[in-house]
Amino acid sequence: MDSVGTVETRYLDLPVPVRLDCNRELGHIRIAYETYGTLAPARDNVILVCHALSGDAHAAGVSAVPPEESTRDGFAAEDRDGTAGRGLGWWDGMIGPGKAFDTDRYHVISTNLLGGCKGTTGPSSIDPATGKPYGSDFPVLTVADMVRTQRAFLDELGIDRLAVVAGGSLGGMQALEWAILYPDRVDSIVVIASTHALHPQGVAWNAIARDAIMRDPAWQGGHYYGTGRKPDGGMGVGRMVGHITYLSGPALDDKFGRRLQFADDIRYTITEPEFEVENYLRHQADSFVKRFDANTYLYLSRALTYFDLGRQYGGSLETALARIEARTLLIAFSSDWLYPPAASEEIEDALRTLGKPVEYHLIEAPYGHDCFLLEEARQTPIIQEFLEKTA
Amino acid sequence: MDSVGTVETRYLDLPVPVRLDCNRELGHIRIAYETYGTLAPARDNVILVCHALSGDAHAAGVSAVPPEESTRDGFAAEDRDGTAGRGLGWWDGMIGPGKAFDTDRYHVISTNLLGGCKGTTGPSSIDPATGKPYGSDFPVLTVADMVRTQRAFLDELGIDRLAVVAGGSLGGMQALEWAILYPDRVDSIVVIASTHALHPQGVAWNAIARDAIMRDPAWQGGHYYGTGRKPDGGMGVGRMVGHITYLSGPALDDKFGRRLQFADDIRYTITEPEFEVENYLRHQADSFVKRFDANTYLYLSRALTYFDLGRQYGGSLETALARIEARTLLIAFSSDWLYPPAASEEIEDALRTLGKPVEYHLIEAPYGHDCFLLEEARQTPIIQEFLEKTA
Repeated sequence: MDSVGTVETRYLDLPVPVRLDCNRELGHIRIAYETYGTLAPARDNVILVCHALSGDAHAAGVSAVPPEESTRDGFAAEDRDGTAGRGLGWWDGMIGPGKAFDTDRYHVISTNLLGGCKGTTGPSSIDPATGKPYGSDFPVLTVADMVRTQRAFLDELGIDRLAVVAGGSLGGMQALEWAILYPDRVDSIVVIASTHALHPQGVAWNAIARDAIMRDPAWQGGHYYGTGRKPDGGMGVGRMVGHITYLSGPALDDKFGRRLQFADDIRYTITEPEFEVENYLRHQADSFVKRFDANTYLYLSRALTYFDLGRQYGGSLETALARIEARTLLIAFSSDWLYPPAASEEIEDALRTLGKPVEYHLIEAPYGHDCFLLEEARQTPIIQEFLEKTA
Repeated sequence: MDSVGTVETRYLDLPVPVRLDCNRELGHIRIAYETYGTLAPARDNVILVCHALSGDAHAAGVSAVPPEESTRDGFAAEDRDGTAGRGLGWWDGMIGPGKAFDTDRYHVISTNLLGGCKGTTGPSSIDPATGKPYGSDFPVLTVADMVRTQRAFLDELGIDRLAVVAGGSLGGMQALEWAILYPDRVDSIVVIASTHALHPQGVAWNAIARDAIMRDPAWQGGHYYGTGRKPDGGMGVGRMVGHITYLSGPALDDKFGRRLQFADDIRYTITEPEFEVENYLRHQADSFVKRFDANTYLYLSRALTYFDLGRQYGGSLETALARIEARTLLIAFSSDWLYPPAASEEIEDALRTLGKPVEYHLIEAPYGHDCFLLEEARQTPIIQEFLEKTA
């Protein structure tokens, strides 16, 4: 399959502030974005792609900026397929000519979300009111705030209507929120490895990762920018927790087993990695802290634990989903224990009860939550067929 | 059921050093221990009880020392049944007159294991060579080292033979190691919620917990004693990770769901707990760091990840278990995903293949690994019947 080629991240400054759920207004918002494929004259072929916790606007193609500035992000995938550092977009297998999100036909838009650290305004951005980075004075965000900001951005581009909003994990939450907040602007949503509300164990893992960051003295209450120190230790630990929750137990068995770093025997060390899986985790932690901002991690992690369609819209999932006009495609993966199939099935059931058009596909695959970035070949025909029916 | 009453922890100094797997000798070892029930004149009614990662010698009865000095330990149980601070032993439901380990009949001995921080020599003990605490100069331990030390201790007591060695989790590893290292000294073992080798995901969780401690600057390379600082932040994070792995997802659903701290709505805060499960985790972390030494956590966590009977004894589980002469009772819990039933079943299969006497019981229960401390009522008849047959 073909690639969208060399791409460049662009930036747009929103002319008006966005009103947030926390009741604060945030002005001077800059959005980092990329587009792939041609916008139809009728402006009716737009796909908005929403990224997950550690993603960015660079979803497809090869980045024009040097590789160290733009890495294929998204969980363990970078390690698995070896594309890290080559500047490939995080969903390149899904976006391009003839791919699931076909750029011969659609105009795909990808933004770095509000609160991010890859070009869109977030905690590491300068607060115009003080001339210093926001740090932990940045307003606490919700998924709905991210969606409102995306809408304000699309308004600037003159795009009123989205043929598709698509994303996995936190990206899938954004797709759901789009269809509920702006039912008259979304034709269909593709919600992959996501949920209407993270389960308590997922809430706990996220709390642990955030606590790991905040308990690092280098976090300094969130105002570490310009101090020469940042909470790399804590964020590394948080990332390790994330990594293990993104993978399944059997995937770890297959990939590492109990293999030792030095095959002959153990070396009797507390401080050094002994098992391959220990070494892998440290490597992942160390590379992540080089390219990601700890405060962004905190804010996005908090937003995805807050996300709870039932609570947000009148107390039940059905009440929330009753607002949806879009056709819904749900994809879940059998081994995903962080965003388990049961959550997608609850959404499916509620939409069916409401008489809304919905399709649900459970893909049997062993890699856990990471499947949404890895199982591109099996998602592609499902998505293509769904979009065919929508068109 | 009756209690063993008020008990006191005693101490014994080993007169000779113990040779460790790492090839170092450790001298001046002090053992903290408790005993319950009466030693038979023939000294043939001894049960050795082995504790898990965060346990101590105080396994049964009410401690004679003030409650804040001796808490019922062992994972989430303290929170669940509210016995913390009342000085009840960590396995009080299992040890006593008429209980699973019946003190009317048996003489039960419980020691704090080597490397511990509850009276037995460990990293926080004074190194006689320097006059300062060992810290990270303490030798790296294995489960076999713990067992060799227990044997040296029992030699001092004049006890040559054990009717039973029993334990859950890391305690079960010690029971298995006893039966393999000293087959002629053990009549039977009771191995609960344990394994012959932790699976890679379990290795990973332990590595993350240790890294959380070691990345805390207050750890100071392991030499934090007497500095006025200790790695509470990191150990708190490690403990939170442990907590979630000791509980099942459904148990968290039942116990906390997505209930908010303040039921009316979210408060838009990154730093404060919003969900009940977040608050619970912080509370558990804060109370744990007050009563447990971070270096002991590191050493015991390392020992339990090293434990691998196949690797230790000639390459296969069968080769290892071929040495066992004791009758084996295995108990596992359906919802335990840290020490899953599959591991116990592998031990059962290998013992059966070898023609060794083994009994395996799978208990259907929802609380995850914590079941071994919570499901006392359902374990009791299984253990009683097994011991009846042994006697």
